[in-house]
Amino acid sequence: MLLLRQCRSLTRVGPLTTQRHLRAALPAASCGVRSCSGGSEEPSSRDAPPHSRWRYGLAGLLVGAGAVVAYGLHYNKAERAATTTVQTIAQDSSVRIFTQEEVTRHRSLEDRVWVTYKGSVYDITDFVSMHPGGDKILLAAGGALEPFWALYAVHSQNHVLDILSEYKVGELSAADRQRQQTVKTSDPYSSDPERHPGLRVNSLKPFNAEPPLQLLNDNYITPSAIFFKRNHLPVPRLDPASYRLHVEGLPRGALTLSLDELKTKFPKHTVTATLQCAGNRRSEMNQVKQVKGLNWGIAAISNATWSGARLRDVLLAAGYAPDVARWARHVQFEGLDKDVTGTTYGASIPLNKAVSEEGDVLLAYEMNGEDLPPDHGFPVRVVVPGTVGARNVKWLGKIVVSAEESGSHWQQNDYKGFSPGTDWDTVDFKSAPAIQELPVQSAITQPAEGAELDRSAEEVTVKGYAWSGGGREVVRVDVSLDGGKTWQVAELQSDERDQAPAPPPPPGRAWAWKLWELTSALPPDAQELEIVCKAVDDSYNMQPDSVPPIWNLRGVLSNAWHRVKVTIREE
Amino acid sequence: MLLLRQCRSLTRVGPLTTQRHLRAALPAASCGVRSCSGGSEEPSSRDAPPHSRWRYGLAGLLVGAGAVVAYGLHYNKAERAATTTVQTIAQDSSVRIFTQEEVTRHRSLEDRVWVTYKGSVYDITDFVSMHPGGDKILLAAGGALEPFWALYAVHSQNHVLDILSEYKVGELSAADRQRQQTVKTSDPYSSDPERHPGLRVNSLKPFNAEPPLQLLNDNYITPSAIFFKRNHLPVPRLDPASYRLHVEGLPRGALTLSLDELKTKFPKHTVTATLQCAGNRRSEMNQVKQVKGLNWGIAAISNATWSGARLRDVLLAAGYAPDVARWARHVQFEGLDKDVTGTTYGASIPLNKAVSEEGDVLLAYEMNGEDLPPDHGFPVRVVVPGTVGARNVKWLGKIVVSAEESGSHWQQNDYKGFSPGTDWDTVDFKSAPAIQELPVQSAITQPAEGAELDRSAEEVTVKGYAWSGGGREVVRVDVSLDGGKTWQVAELQSDERDQAPAPPPPPGRAWAWKLWELTSALPPDAQELEIVCKAVDDSYNMQPDSVPPIWNLRGVLSNAWHRVKVTIREE
Repeated sequence: MLLLRQCRSLTRVGPLTTQRHLRAALPAASCGVRSCSGGSEEPSSRDAPPHSRWRYGLAGLLVGAGAVVAYGLHYNKAERAATTTVQTIAQDSSVRIFTQEEVTRHRSLEDRVWVTYKGSVYDITDFVSMHPGGDKILLAAGGALEPFWALYAVHSQNHVLDILSEYKVGELSAADRQRQQTVKTSDPYSSDPERHPGLRVNSLKPFNAEPPLQLLNDNYITPSAIFFKRNHLPVPRLDPASYRLHVEGLPRGALTLSLDELKTKFPKHTVTATLQCAGNRRSEMNQVKQVKGLNWGIAAISNATWSGARLRDVLLAAGYAPDVARWARHVQFEGLDKDVTGTTYGASIPLNKAVSEEGDVLLAYEMNGEDLPPDHGFPVRVVVPGTVGARNVKWLGKIVVSAEESGSHWQQNDYKGFSPGTDWDTVDFKSAPAIQELPVQSAITQPAEGAELDRSAEEVTVKGYAWSGGGREVVRVDVSLDGGKTWQVAELQSDERDQAPAPPPPPGRAWAWKLWELTSALPPDAQELEIVCKAVDDSYNMQPDSVPPIWNLRGVLSNAWHRVKVTIREE
Repeated sequence: MLLLRQCRSLTRVGPLTTQRHLRAALPAASCGVRSCSGGSEEPSSRDAPPHSRWRYGLAGLLVGAGAVVAYGLHYNKAERAATTTVQTIAQDSSVRIFTQEEVTRHRSLEDRVWVTYKGSVYDITDFVSMHPGGDKILLAAGGALEPFWALYAVHSQNHVLDILSEYKVGELSAADRQRQQTVKTSDPYSSDPERHPGLRVNSLKPFNAEPPLQLLNDNYITPSAIFFKRNHLPVPRLDPASYRLHVEGLPRGALTLSLDELKTKFPKHTVTATLQCAGNRRSEMNQVKQVKGLNWGIAAISNATWSGARLRDVLLAAGYAPDVARWARHVQFEGLDKDVTGTTYGASIPLNKAVSEEGDVLLAYEMNGEDLPPDHGFPVRVVVPGTVGARNVKWLGKIVVSAEESGSHWQQNDYKGFSPGTDWDTVDFKSAPAIQELPVQSAITQPAEGAELDRSAEEVTVKGYAWSGGGREVVRVDVSLDGGKTWQVAELQSDERDQAPAPPPPPGRAWAWKLWELTSALPPDAQELEIVCKAVDDSYNMQPDSVPPIWNLRGVLSNAWHRVKVTIREE
C-alpha cells in the first residue's frame, strides 16, 4: 500500500520510478495501469466532448477483459475487510456516515469523486489518474461500483479491493444501505449461452475463448461450437419475431427490416470467410513485454460459411446511390449488446468496402448452414470478409451511412497499431488508422510446443493455418525445421479434404484461410527442432521475422513467424 | 575448357560438383547459368507448345540484361580465334566447308542445332542444356548468332566465345559468308534516346537505370529525366500521327483508336502514382547469394503524375459490359517494342482491376504534364497504379480482354516470387502467381551507406521513401539508429513541400509514395550507427526483418528492412 499512498500524493507528477513500481505491484495480466505519473490524460478525454468521453469510458472499462482467467481465484481479502468495517460501525463512532444524496453530489474531479461498494463510501478522486482506463472510472461517480464490477470480473480480486480500501471515507447510512440491497445486482452475463467444454477460455465475463489447437486443423470449416468467441459485452437474448434492423443516414430516410424481411426480400448470398481477432497471438507479444488485452494464443481465428443478405443490396434498397459516396465515407454498425449505461458495441468500415460488389459484406443470419448461434450474433451479424473481427458486429441493431467513422471506443481508441517505441504515456490514438484489413498470418497447430517426437518415426508432420486480410490469397507457406535457416514449401489445403477442390477465388476475394501441411524427414543429428512457418499472400507480403519489432502496447497484429520448439527422443 | 568438356559429355546427368564448378567458372554477374547437370528442362519448354516455347525463348534471352555493365570490357579472345581460323582455311584442307543451306537444315535437337558466327559453323546441340536460358538458344538454330548477340551485350565477352569455340564444326562457304556480310547487322538500340547523365546505369542495351540517391528525396514528384528506366527491348520510335491502339477480345469486335481519338474521345484523368520495378533492391539479395537479373540498388522506384484516358472508359467504349466478366479474367497488353523475331513485350492484369472505377488504370499519354518521354512509352503506356512496374506496358499497341493471362515470358516465366529453398533446378514457374500488387516497401536515401557523420552536428537527419502496392497507404515509418533494437516514428510527407497538403487518398487508392524524414540526436556513446527503416501500410503489413528468408532466385520482391551503416567522426 506504500506505493499507492505515494501515488496518491504524487498524482500526475510522480516520478518514473513510482510508475514502474506501481506497475510491478499490480497483477501482471491486468488490463494495463494508466500510472499515477503519466501526466497526460487518456486520449479519449483530450478530444472528445464530455458525453462521448463517458461513453468511451465505460467502453474502455469493458475492453480487454481477457486477463480474468489468468488472475486465478484470489480470496477476497479487501471484501472481507469491507464487511468487517460495516459490522464495526456501531462500535466506532468516529466513522462518518453519509447519505446516498451526499454521495451523489460527488460526481466530478471538481466536486471530488465518491463511490460506494458494499455499504462503504470511497473518495477515489486521487485514484482517477491511476485507474487502468484513466478517468473511465468516473462513470461510477456518485453511485455504486457493483453494476460495473459485475460486468467486468477483473475487479473481483484482492489487488483491486486493496487499492479501493485506501480511499475509504465512511459508510453509507443504514437506510440507503437497505435501499441499495433491495435493488438486486443481477449478473448481466446470466443469460450467456452454454459453451463447448473444449474451448480454451481467456475470459468468462465477457466470454472470450479459442478452439483447442488439437482440433483446429481437423476441419477446413470450423464447427460453430468451437469457432473462437470474442464478446465485448454480455450476449443479448433477442426475439427473432420482434427483431428489427434499422438502416439510417441515407437521403431517403430510415429503413426498418424485420428478420423475415431480411431473409425474404434480398437474395441469400453465401461466403466462406475466416475471421480473426486483432489480438490473435497476443501471448507472444506478452512474452516480449506486457501488453494490454486478452492473452490469446494462436487460435483467435476460425473459418466458417456465412449466409445472409448482402449489405450492398440492403443499402441499395435503403436508397444508396453512387452520389452518396460524394459525402459519405463510412458505414457504421451498432450492436444490440450493451453495457449498464446503454452504450452498445459499435464499429464501422469504409463505404467502398460496404457497397462494392466484390466486397461480399453480408448481413448474415446463418453460420455453417444453421441460424447464427447466440455467441455469434443471433439473429443477425455483419460479416466483413478480409477485415478484422472487431468490425464484424454481432447482434446487429443499426446501420448508419455516414461521413464519419464510428465514434465508438473500439473504433477510435482501440484496435489500432503503433510503433514498438510508443507507450501509454506517448500514444496518440488519432495518429493511427483503425485496423480494417489484417496483414498476412500463419501459425503451426501441430506439433505442439514442447512436444517429443519419436526418432523411430523418421519424419515429422507439421500442420497449421495461413490467411491474409483484404481478400489476398495465401499463395505459399514456407516451413523451416532449423529456426529459419532453410525452408521447405508446405502443401496448401483450400477445402474440406473429402470434397472436390473448389475453384480458385476471384482476384481480391480470397476470404477463407488455407490449412497447410508438410511432412519432412527428421534431420539425422538434431536433438531438437525449432519449427517455423511463414506465409506469403498474392501481393507477396510476408510475415515479419520476429516479435519485438512489431510489439505494440495493445498487443494487436501479432503476425511474426510462428515458432514451435520440439525435442526428438532417441530410442 | 576442361569443365565445359565434362559438361558436354554429361549433358543432363552431370554430378552436382560439375554444376557447381561450371557456375564458378562463369562470370559472377551472369544472368544465371542453367547448368549442365540440371536434368529438368526449362519450365517454359515443358508445358508450352513449340511456337510459344520459341517466343518465350527469345524473351528470356533478352531478360535480365543488367549484368552487362558489371562485366566490364573483356578483350575478345575467342573472336580473335575465330578470325584466325577463317584466315587459315586455305591452308588447312581438313576444315569442313558448309553452305548456308546445309546449316539451315540443323534447326532442332533431332536434326542437331547448328549456328554461324563470323563465318564459322558451330554444332551447339550439346550446349543447349547448358545455356543460361536452356533451349532458348534454339531461336538462332540454323542461322547466324549476330542479330541475337547484338540485342544482348552479355554475349560479347570471352567466356561466352570460349564456350562457343568448343563446338566449332567447320566454316561457312565463301559465297555464303559474302552474302551474310552484305546483310549489315544494325544496332537495334541505335534509336534509343539521350539520357540524363546523372542516372546510375545498370544496363545500356536494353537501357536500365535508376536515379541517383542524392536526388531521390528532393522532389515528391520525380522529374521524368531521372525517373527510373526499365526497358526490356530497344525503344521504338513511333509516329504519333500514325499511331494506333487496338482493343480486342470484346464481343462487339475490335476497336482502333488514334492518339488524337484517345485524347479527345475520353475524359482526361490524372493520377499520381509510384512505379516500382519488381527487382528494386535486388543488389541486397545478391549479397546473400547470387540471383539472376539487373543489379538494382534501392532506386528502381519513382513517383510521377500521369494523365490519360481511363482504361475502364476505353473498354466500355469497346463494348465491355458486366457480363463479359463471366468468361473474361484478364486484360492483356502488348507493347510495340519488339525483338528480332517480332515478339513484343507483353503483360496482363486482372480484369477487375482494369474495369474498376477505383482501379484508376490509365492509358497515359502524359507524364508530369508533358508528352510521355520515349523511355517511358511515348505516345501511350498503361499505368496500373499499385501494381508492379512490369505490368505498366509502354509503347502500348494492343489491349486484349481474355480468359487467359498474357502468354508472354514476362508474365509466365519471370516476375514471380519463390521460396528461398527453390533453385533453378527445382523451380516450377506455374506454381507461383505473376506478381501484380507489390508488398510494403521503404528505404533510406540519406545518409548514404558508409557516410561519416560529424559529432559536432549533434543530430542526424535520416530520409527515405515508403510505398505499398494495391493502393494501401503507408501509415507509419519506424526508424532505428541501433540496428532495430529501438524505434522512432518518422515524419511522413505526402506532397511537394511547397504545396498545400493534398487531401488523404480514398481507401484503397493510395497510389503514391510517401517521403519521410526523422531528425534524432546522435547517441552519445556510439561510434557507428546501423540505421534501419521499416514501413507499415494501412492493412498493417510490415516489412520482413532480413533478406535471407525472402531471398529468391530471381531476386524480386526485395523488401526487407533497409539498413545503412554510418560512422560518427569525433572532433
